[in-house]
Amino acid sequence: MLPYKTLLKIDKSSSEAVFKQIASQLVLLIQKGILMPDMQLPSTRLLAAELDLHRKTIMAAYNELITEDWIIGKERKEYRVSTLLPIIKPRTYADKAKSSYKAKSVVSFDKLEHVPSLTETKAGYKVIVNDGFPDVNIFPIERVSGEYRRLLTHQHLKKTSATLNIDGSLVFKEALALFLNDTRGLNIDPENLMVTRGAQMAIYMAASMILKPGDKVLVTTPSYFFADAIFRQLGAELITIPVDDDGADVEAIANALQNNQIKLLYIIPHHHHPTTVTLSSSRRTKLLEIINTHQLTVIEDDYDYDFQYQYSPYLPLASGAHGGHVIYIGSLTKVLGPDFRLGYLISTPDFLSSAIRLKTLIDLRGDVLMEEIIASLMQSGEFSRFIMKANKLYRHRCDYAADLITNELGHLVDFNKPQGGMALWLKFNEQYPLAHIIKKSAALGLQFTGRAYFKSSDLPYDAIRFGFAAVNEQEIEFAVDILKKITF
Amino acid sequence: MLPYKTLLKIDKSSSEAVFKQIASQLVLLIQKGILMPDMQLPSTRLLAAELDLHRKTIMAAYNELITEDWIIGKERKEYRVSTLLPIIKPRTYADKAKSSYKAKSVVSFDKLEHVPSLTETKAGYKVIVNDGFPDVNIFPIERVSGEYRRLLTHQHLKKTSATLNIDGSLVFKEALALFLNDTRGLNIDPENLMVTRGAQMAIYMAASMILKPGDKVLVTTPSYFFADAIFRQLGAELITIPVDDDGADVEAIANALQNNQIKLLYIIPHHHHPTTVTLSSSRRTKLLEIINTHQLTVIEDDYDYDFQYQYSPYLPLASGAHGGHVIYIGSLTKVLGPDFRLGYLISTPDFLSSAIRLKTLIDLRGDVLMEEIIASLMQSGEFSRFIMKANKLYRHRCDYAADLITNELGHLVDFNKPQGGMALWLKFNEQYPLAHIIKKSAALGLQFTGRAYFKSSDLPYDAIRFGFAAVNEQEIEFAVDILKKITF
Repeated sequence: MLPYKTLLKIDKSSSEAVFKQIASQLVLLIQKGILMPDMQLPSTRLLAAELDLHRKTIMAAYNELITEDWIIGKERKEYRVSTLLPIIKPRTYADKAKSSYKAKSVVSFDKLEHVPSLTETKAGYKVIVNDGFPDVNIFPIERVSGEYRRLLTHQHLKKTSATLNIDGSLVFKEALALFLNDTRGLNIDPENLMVTRGAQMAIYMAASMILKPGDKVLVTTPSYFFADAIFRQLGAELITIPVDDDGADVEAIANALQNNQIKLLYIIPHHHHPTTVTLSSSRRTKLLEIINTHQLTVIEDDYDYDFQYQYSPYLPLASGAHGGHVIYIGSLTKVLGPDFRLGYLISTPDFLSSAIRLKTLIDLRGDVLMEEIIASLMQSGEFSRFIMKANKLYRHRCDYAADLITNELGHLVDFNKPQGGMALWLKFNEQYPLAHIIKKSAALGLQFTGRAYFKSSDLPYDAIRFGFAAVNEQEIEFAVDILKKITF
Repeated sequence: MLPYKTLLKIDKSSSEAVFKQIASQLVLLIQKGILMPDMQLPSTRLLAAELDLHRKTIMAAYNELITEDWIIGKERKEYRVSTLLPIIKPRTYADKAKSSYKAKSVVSFDKLEHVPSLTETKAGYKVIVNDGFPDVNIFPIERVSGEYRRLLTHQHLKKTSATLNIDGSLVFKEALALFLNDTRGLNIDPENLMVTRGAQMAIYMAASMILKPGDKVLVTTPSYFFADAIFRQLGAELITIPVDDDGADVEAIANALQNNQIKLLYIIPHHHHPTTVTLSSSRRTKLLEIINTHQLTVIEDDYDYDFQYQYSPYLPLASGAHGGHVIYIGSLTKVLGPDFRLGYLISTPDFLSSAIRLKTLIDLRGDVLMEEIIASLMQSGEFSRFIMKANKLYRHRCDYAADLITNELGHLVDFNKPQGGMALWLKFNEQYPLAHIIKKSAALGLQFTGRAYFKSSDLPYDAIRFGFAAVNEQEIEFAVDILKKITF
C-alpha cells in the first residue's frame, strides 16, 4: 500500500469537508501518476484506519470519485483507478530536451523593441515609490467582496452570459455616463461610451482605428511612453511639441498644423504624464479654436481627472464645443488600483459601433461582474464618497511630500507642486545623476518602480515621477531620508 | 425644508448601517444638485424627527459627511453643504443639443465593416441555444466567491499591486503550465506562457506580431470568423483550404505552400470551428512533417481541447516535434463561462518577451485576483475534477441532442456527431432555408445566438452551430420540438 498517511494531508480546520479534501487529493495523486490507471485503492476500512477517520468519510470520498469517473468501484469492495482517464503522465520542467519550445524562436516576428520596459519590483525593499498609483489600503474590500458574493449566483451568471457585453454591461455604462456627466460636465448617453481594460486599451483601440502607417501624430515631449509606443507600433510618425508649466505649447500645435498633414493630436490636459502640469485655461480655449478651425482629431487622455486638489478643476476639452473631434479617454484604475482595470472611450455612436467591432477582435468581453459591482457603488453614492475620501488623503500626502522634499532635498531636486494627480515630477540637479540615485536607493531598501527619465535632446535634466498617493507619512519620510543620505 | 422623508429612503433590512445609508443618499442629493452648495441642512433633531430615527444616527451621518468634506458643521448646530465641492451640476441625457457627440462622427476612422456582428439576445425567449458555451449552472460559485473573499484583503492587494503581472501572475502561470503539461503532454515552463483575455486576445497578439500588410495566411474554410477578421484587419491576404470530415485538407496545405509565399497557418485541430471535426491522426503526422519541411509558422487554436468525449484525445500539434514553429493558444473561458476570460499563448521565451511588450500597449495587466483563484483550484485538484464533471454532463447532452435530432429532425438537418466540444454542426437540407427557421424559431421562443452560416461559394449548405453544453434535456427537447413544428 502507498504511504497514504503521508500522501493525504487533511486540514480539519479547513472550511472544505474532509471527504472532499480526500477526493481532491486522490485526484492529484492520479494526475501526478502516483496512482496509475487500474491500480487498486485501499479498502475504505483500511484507509479509514490509516488516516484515523471514520469509514463513512472514506466511502463518501470514493463515491464522489466514482460519480466523477475517476475510480471504479466493484460491489462496494474493490476500488480501482479508472483505465479511461483523459490524463497523460505529467512531464516535469526538467525534461527540457524534448520540448520544441527551445530558447530561441524559429518564427519570424516583430520584436517591438521600441516599447519601453517597466521595472519589476525586486525582493528586499522596505518602501516602494511608484510613479502614480492609488493607495490600495483604502480600497473598499468589504463592499466589493460583498457585492461579488451577491452577484455571483448561477441565476445571475445565466443572465449575464446571455448578453454580449462587448462594450460593457448596460447597467455600468448607464452609471458611468451619469458619473461622467456629473463630474466632468460631459453630456453623453451610454451609447457614446465603451468600457475597456483601462485607458491603455482605449488609446490602443482609438489609435488603431484612426491611424494608418505613415500618418503623422502630434505628441508632447516627454509624453506618456506607452501612448508614444502605440503610435510607433501602428507605423505612425511622431511630431513632438514642447510642454511647459502651462501644459502643451498650443502655439507649437498651431505651427505644426501649418507645416504638416497631421492626423491626430494626443494630449493629457490634466496632470500631464510625466510632468504633472495642467493645461491652462487660456490654452484650452485656444486649443478648442484650433481643433475646430483645423478639423483636428484629438485623443484627450484624462486618466487622472478624478484627483483635483484645488476644488475648481478645468473641465475636459471633451466638455467644450469641439464638434465631435475629441475622443475622450479615462480610467477607473486610478481610483480603484492596478488590479481593477476599467477604462472607457467616449465618442460618437458611429465611431463606437466600429470600436465594438475592433473590441470583438481584441478582447470580446469585459469583466461584467466587476462592472456591475462598480455600477452598484456608483448608484448608491459610495463611489463618489470614496473618491472624495481618496482626494482628501492624497491632497494631504501631496502637501506632505512637497513640503518635506522642498525642505530636505532642495539641493538635489526641483519640482512644481501639481494641481492634482498622484505624482511629483522630480527634476534632478545636474551634479546628481539619477542612475546612481536609483541604484543606491534600491540598496538601502527604497525602490522606484516608475520609469527613469534620463537627460536627452528632448529633456534637459534627469527626472522621475515620485508617486505620493500610495505612501504614508512614514514612508515619505523614509524615502526622503534615503535620498538625503546618498553620497556622490 | 426639503421633503427629506420622501428623498431619503432607508432600508432597515440592508446590511449597510442606517447612518451610512443616510450619508450616501445625502451625497447623491448633492450630486444631483437638489442640495446646492451652501444650502443649509435640517438640524439633527429635526431630521431625526422627520425620519423617525434617533438623533445620534443623524449625527453619525453628518459627521461622516463632515469628515469627507461634503458638508460643513458650525458648532454642532448649523450644517451647510460645502461650497468647495468638485461637483458640477449634472446634465441630463435630454440636453442632447449641446453635446459635441452628435449622431455622426466628423473623425475619419476605420469602420471595420469586414468584422461579423454577433446576435444580441432579444427579450421574450424561452430557450437560448448558443454556439458552444459551457453551462454556467455548474460553475463553482461557492468556492470562487470564497477564494475571492479570502484574497481580497488590503495586505494582498498591496502585494499584487507591487508586481507588474503583465503576462499573468506567477502563481497562475505555474499552475497553468503544470495543468497543460499534464493534460496536453506539453513540456513547458511558466516562461513559455502568457495569460491573455481569452483565446481571442492571444490570436490577435500572435497575429499582430507575425503578420505585415500583404502577408498571406492559410485558413480553412469555413473557419473561426473572428480569427479571419483579425487577419483581414492586419492587412493579410487569406488563402483558403478546405476542411472535410477528417479536418483540414493537409494535401491542400502542402499545395498552397508550393504555390505561395505563406507567412502563417491558422488551424483548429480539435473540434474545428465551426464544423466541429477533429484533425485525424494521420493528417496530424503529415502536417507536422510539412511544418518542419517548410519551416511553416502555425497558430494552433485549441480552445476546446478540455472537452473530449472519447477518452483517447489526440495530443495537440504543439506537443509534437514542431521545432518551435507552433504557437499554441487556448482558453479557460470554455471551462468557466463567458464572464471569466482567461486565455493563454504558448511559445518560445523570446517570442513571449516581445509579446509582453505588445501586451503593455493593449492591456497592461490581467485580472490577477481571478488568476489566483483559478490557480488555487488547480493546486487543490478541484479544477480537474470540475472539468471531469463538465465532460460527463456535456457528453451526455451531446448524446441526448444527437439522438433526438437524428430521430426527430432527420428530414431537416444532417450532422456528424463530434468527438468532443460543445456544439453540433447542423447542416440544413436545401428545401429548409435557415433564415426562415431562425425567424420562426425566435417567434416561438427559441433563440439561436450563434452566427448563421448561409450557403455560399465556400459552403454548399446553410448551417448553424447547435451548442448542446448549456441546455438541459428539457431545453433540448423544447428546441427540437420547435424546429419540428416550423412549417415552410
